[in-house]
Amino acid sequence: MLYLVGLGLADETDITVKGLEIVKKAERVYLEAYTSILLVDTAKLEEFYGRPVIVADREMVESSSDEILHNADKVDVAFLVVGDPFGATTHTDLVLRARELGIEMRNIPNASIMSAIGCTGLQLYSFGQTVSMVFFTETWKPSSYYDRIKQNAEHGLHTLVLLDIKVKEQSLENMARGRKIYEPPRYMTVAQCAEQMLETEAERKEGICGPESLAIGAARVGAIDQQLVVGTLEELTKVDLGKPLHSLVLLGTKTHELERDYIRRFAVDTATFDNIWKKHYEAKS
Amino acid sequence: MLYLVGLGLADETDITVKGLEIVKKAERVYLEAYTSILLVDTAKLEEFYGRPVIVADREMVESSSDEILHNADKVDVAFLVVGDPFGATTHTDLVLRARELGIEMRNIPNASIMSAIGCTGLQLYSFGQTVSMVFFTETWKPSSYYDRIKQNAEHGLHTLVLLDIKVKEQSLENMARGRKIYEPPRYMTVAQCAEQMLETEAERKEGICGPESLAIGAARVGAIDQQLVVGTLEELTKVDLGKPLHSLVLLGTKTHELERDYIRRFAVDTATFDNIWKKHYEAKS
Repeated sequence: MLYLVGLGLADETDITVKGLEIVKKAERVYLEAYTSILLVDTAKLEEFYGRPVIVADREMVESSSDEILHNADKVDVAFLVVGDPFGATTHTDLVLRARELGIEMRNIPNASIMSAIGCTGLQLYSFGQTVSMVFFTETWKPSSYYDRIKQNAEHGLHTLVLLDIKVKEQSLENMARGRKIYEPPRYMTVAQCAEQMLETEAERKEGICGPESLAIGAARVGAIDQQLVVGTLEELTKVDLGKPLHSLVLLGTKTHELERDYIRRFAVDTATFDNIWKKHYEAKS
Repeated sequence: MLYLVGLGLADETDITVKGLEIVKKAERVYLEAYTSILLVDTAKLEEFYGRPVIVADREMVESSSDEILHNADKVDVAFLVVGDPFGATTHTDLVLRARELGIEMRNIPNASIMSAIGCTGLQLYSFGQTVSMVFFTETWKPSSYYDRIKQNAEHGLHTLVLLDIKVKEQSLENMARGRKIYEPPRYMTVAQCAEQMLETEAERKEGICGPESLAIGAARVGAIDQQLVVGTLEELTKVDLGKPLHSLVLLGTKTHELERDYIRRFAVDTATFDNIWKKHYEAKS
């Protein structure tokens, strides 16, 4: 049996009791370690599980999935995924390959940022499609996310923006020379994301994410040092929310006063918040 | 400290290790038991936790929240919520009241249907806003959900439809006479939901959820007997997915071939599925 086990968002104790039992008993345990990270390292997980864990990078999962699935029709193999196994990144190709090999699969759900973002106090019913934000480079500043935010904004919906992480990336030079030397990991911050959104807005000028747009920066959701901050995108370019992972929610205009009451205490500046809320966000219904 | 602890979706072992530790140590433990249910009863939970649990119905949470929060500035109180504490139903009013009383709060996230629905193999990035479907009556058939599905459909997005549950409801007669006699619980099925969607479509006629629209019925997500079935709404009116809880996803037309490959095996009828997929859903990009 192939078990896809969600690990939740923060540390080793965010696994479910059901998931932990499976991890303890499985013949082999893989940790998917390239689309998201826990806030603790693999050694900590191994200590908690009382067993070794094989770190699976993108190359392994995408090119050597048969190695992961080896024998899984006879023994139990656990594939651990930060968040929920079918959350922001789905592992449908692994499951499809398992099906081809006649291997059964069971999924152990857990918290995903795509629902845990409800901790901001915004109603999940009022979110449109989620978008992701990649690190811009000098020559590559994709703005397709802007179109999707615009679609959400047309109906007054909030948008969850998931921020890029780069782990085990090669520099162009090292890649060209075939050297397996990897750059240090990079995790996009709320400030960087706000900056890039303002950059796209300056180019597109459709009033979707300008300096007066309200957003919530969320850091380390589910951890004991979870942090939320509410401000205009302009304000958020100056906040420092500390260690990864960060996410951002761009507010839609279809708001509820309970949402305002909940988020107001996280405002960078309460006077600015009240002023902008009244101007652009106050529920008309 | 007030702890909001997510229980996940299926049974007592879906609580996280972190959540379980809190439940074991808390002075009082409440179970929110009116917006969703686990697939096991409270006695089972009490046995697993090794302690009593106080069942909190809507009346208690909405009118007697100070009873729940009593003393929570000095002792630990755990408030258990099926799914994620800030998932489909948020408990922001309880937290706001806690703030007024100077009580700190910590949130222990868990799987919510709003992200666990990714187990259908559909990409969560391609979902628009979530809607909920209430039981229609002879005189009350609200169709505001139809407008929201339409907004999603305009951009080709999938829609998660959460299905009504009625627990501890009084009949109109008992309510009028002030008799605290409650009706047996009711849980909407996928078939009932499909039926109601076709009913609204027949009235509105905008081609949003007609007999040829594809949808996925999901039952008992996360449980060992989880079940998925894919078909037209017409087909789904005839399926029996067994015990609660059920959810439904109406497919958008912005699809990926991996989605098709993943869901095809759950088709009520593969020939119909292939035919309709080709006609309306095949990715044009």
